[in-house]
Amino acid sequence: MAEFEKLPGIGPRSAERLAFHILKSEKDAALGLASAIREVKENVRHCRICYNLTEADPCPICTDAKRDASIVFVVEQPKDVLLLEATGLVRGVYHVLLGHISALDGIEPGDLTIDALVARVKKGGVKEIVLATNPTMEGEGTGLHIKSVLAATGVPITRLARGLPRGSQIEYANRAILQDAIEGRSAF
Amino acid sequence: MAEFEKLPGIGPRSAERLAFHILKSEKDAALGLASAIREVKENVRHCRICYNLTEADPCPICTDAKRDASIVFVVEQPKDVLLLEATGLVRGVYHVLLGHISALDGIEPGDLTIDALVARVKKGGVKEIVLATNPTMEGEGTGLHIKSVLAATGVPITRLARGLPRGSQIEYANRAILQDAIEGRSAF
Repeated sequence: MAEFEKLPGIGPRSAERLAFHILKSEKDAALGLASAIREVKENVRHCRICYNLTEADPCPICTDAKRDASIVFVVEQPKDVLLLEATGLVRGVYHVLLGHISALDGIEPGDLTIDALVARVKKGGVKEIVLATNPTMEGEGTGLHIKSVLAATGVPITRLARGLPRGSQIEYANRAILQDAIEGRSAF
Repeated sequence: MAEFEKLPGIGPRSAERLAFHILKSEKDAALGLASAIREVKENVRHCRICYNLTEADPCPICTDAKRDASIVFVVEQPKDVLLLEATGLVRGVYHVLLGHISALDGIEPGDLTIDALVARVKKGGVKEIVLATNPTMEGEGTGLHIKSVLAATGVPITRLARGLPRGSQIEYANRAILQDAIEGRSAF
């Protein structure tokens, strides 16, 4: 129970329920969870190129010859890679920052994989950096910092489009969203 | 109670509560609501130019000399005008369609103010039509119809930007939003 309770979103009641489930379940099923946890901790690491979580290093995306390594999507977290991959629309590769700059939380540029990104770009072959950080204050600030440290390389930097989320109604958009939508309007 | 119950979102219990409130309140306060309703129904009409709701015809926006009448924001509903005006970012004027094309609901182009928009553009002086319909199937379809009926005029048509809503997280974006964000990415 104490170990389950350390997990996020699991309180004493849930921990109790989970612990009793383990006690009741077949030995194999329970040990399956234990070995999955051990396996993940022993075999999953960060890709040396893009810093995504992977069992093979470099990761399958970085070593996929069919992908266009000249377009690098810069994301905050490994789960953002999963989301973008699920769209099937990214032909390029990734660079995972492993967070965002946040003065409040004491996270500085040096805590992220920005130096590795700069080194990667300086190696050559990158034709576009797509900033796919979150459209938040921190994501924006991190994007601006990356823009400044990459300025000398001359590589074009783009950013994911901001505006009205498809399927929504103008009625529910706030001023910031409408501002992006108005200022970013494009030929139709 | 029966009259209150006809209003949207007001059930029998709320209608009862409202009716007793009227019975208990000062005569002036209760008559204030009655006369406000009468006044609105007698004095509020559609602007002959933009079809927004207004007491003065043409409306204050259409007659405001400081506004740029060459940029016309095309919206579905009068409330969309309020929302866009609240941003303070629209220097142009509006055209209210009074709905959107919807085969399911039997709403055809002729039920909207599209003919009036075409006539307005043909009069000349319009340099940009900004489609500010909702980013939904119906809003999109209505936009495409307007694009086709305005094609002969040669007036440039733009659309409000679509993408990630500012302040959100990529984590919560669905495939359609990510598609807009990736395909619409722009220089940063």
